[in-house]
Amino acid sequence: MQAADELRDAVEAYLDSLPLTPELGSLEEALRYSLDSGGKRVRPVLCLAVAEANGASVEDALPAAAALELVHTFSLVHDDLPALDDDDERRGRPSAHVAFGEGVALLSGDALLSEAYRLALTYDRTDLARHLVEATIGMIAGQYRDITGDTAELEEIHRLKTGRLFVAAVRMGLDVARVPDSDRAAWMAFGEDVGLLFQVVDDLLDAEASTATLGKTAGKDSRQGKSTYVSLLGAQRTRELAQELRAEALAALDGLGTRAARLSALADFVVLRKF
Amino acid sequence: MQAADELRDAVEAYLDSLPLTPELGSLEEALRYSLDSGGKRVRPVLCLAVAEANGASVEDALPAAAALELVHTFSLVHDDLPALDDDDERRGRPSAHVAFGEGVALLSGDALLSEAYRLALTYDRTDLARHLVEATIGMIAGQYRDITGDTAELEEIHRLKTGRLFVAAVRMGLDVARVPDSDRAAWMAFGEDVGLLFQVVDDLLDAEASTATLGKTAGKDSRQGKSTYVSLLGAQRTRELAQELRAEALAALDGLGTRAARLSALADFVVLRKF
Repeated sequence: MQAADELRDAVEAYLDSLPLTPELGSLEEALRYSLDSGGKRVRPVLCLAVAEANGASVEDALPAAAALELVHTFSLVHDDLPALDDDDERRGRPSAHVAFGEGVALLSGDALLSEAYRLALTYDRTDLARHLVEATIGMIAGQYRDITGDTAELEEIHRLKTGRLFVAAVRMGLDVARVPDSDRAAWMAFGEDVGLLFQVVDDLLDAEASTATLGKTAGKDSRQGKSTYVSLLGAQRTRELAQELRAEALAALDGLGTRAARLSALADFVVLRKF
Repeated sequence: MQAADELRDAVEAYLDSLPLTPELGSLEEALRYSLDSGGKRVRPVLCLAVAEANGASVEDALPAAAALELVHTFSLVHDDLPALDDDDERRGRPSAHVAFGEGVALLSGDALLSEAYRLALTYDRTDLARHLVEATIGMIAGQYRDITGDTAELEEIHRLKTGRLFVAAVRMGLDVARVPDSDRAAWMAFGEDVGLLFQVVDDLLDAEASTATLGKTAGKDSRQGKSTYVSLLGAQRTRELAQELRAEALAALDGLGTRAARLSALADFVVLRKF
């Protein structure tokens, strides 16, 4: 299996040369701006790694992996809008609506989502696109719960808002490799754990990092009254939770033998992002 | 073939009882509010009529027809937002963002689009969803050109913003009936004509009707500096253009024999909407 950094390079190269629908015209600039973000590409890397571990080629999995990144990017562009999180900065640069205006940012998000489905539909079967749709709807439902603010639902919000796209990354990797349903349970459990782990680490980063190193407005979640793992559990307990989830993710991989063993590096790719 | 009004009733009944993804929770209210609009359902009726004229059952075509209406509704919800057309009224009622707030309206549009793809993917093949994606991207590209305001491109804007979804309605009706590519040209030409006809009639309505009868803010297009057929050609010439397009649409049907003859009623369903 290729290392996570190699898979990330493959994602970057694919996204860089990905043709978008020509009719978008100069709207394409806004899509490229948001896609060309310097993000870690965690979801597509996860998809590629799972597909490769199950015998598919990275090349076959790249459209699915890119589709996941486009859905993720769509969600960031819309969530940053003044009507939602009102965040002027994203990954150290002006948010899309600051750079292009609200109307163009809104349309660029709509176009990113549609381009994602276009990519998922380049496969000659419906399973990949169906799984992407289900995850996207779950993600939107999570954002809705987040802005309507029921703090008792924190884990449910994260399971939807962040977790569903991680689970879809694993599932679509399995789809590309045509892994039968009966062989999927451990992989799906790994996806659930990694998704939750990612969110817990994200909360820690938001609470602890400065705006400069984080590349987005730090401490914003708590100032907006959004509850986070850190605000509910405290930083120390949240750090322990991250370690527990990492162990759980690795345990999920244990039953899958050597072809999955090196996927454990992915758990660290997630948990060790910034510290 | 069933009359257009009967097909419209079938669409209404299907939409009324359509289960949405349960995880949406109370966000479903905002989707239902915008879907339950009293619109004429022109696009889904067109899809059903084309499918039925080519030997498919209305029942088989209803998910595709509903998917088209959901994409159309998504576009209305987002276009009405303050960041785009800033329209407070839609079909005689408060727009979604007035009724639910901007954030919820934005998310409800995202969810409508994703639910549309979910419906298009209930078919066991990718053609319907692919055609819906292509039309949606074209529609978004048209709205982008509309807000960036190059008046020289009026026909191109309408071909994208309105026409693409009409063409998709015809194409998806043909998909449901599994009409081979070689037999599609006249149907597609009919779709192009009806889409343009619809937009021309829409411009006439916007220029001539009062806000009360139109159910949205009348005369808004010209006040926003958007060029329309009426502002470019004058009302009289635009009315003649509508009649010419109607004749062209009917001519496109001529070569298709008796099974298409009754589709001509659809051209009148479009052109005679309000006068």
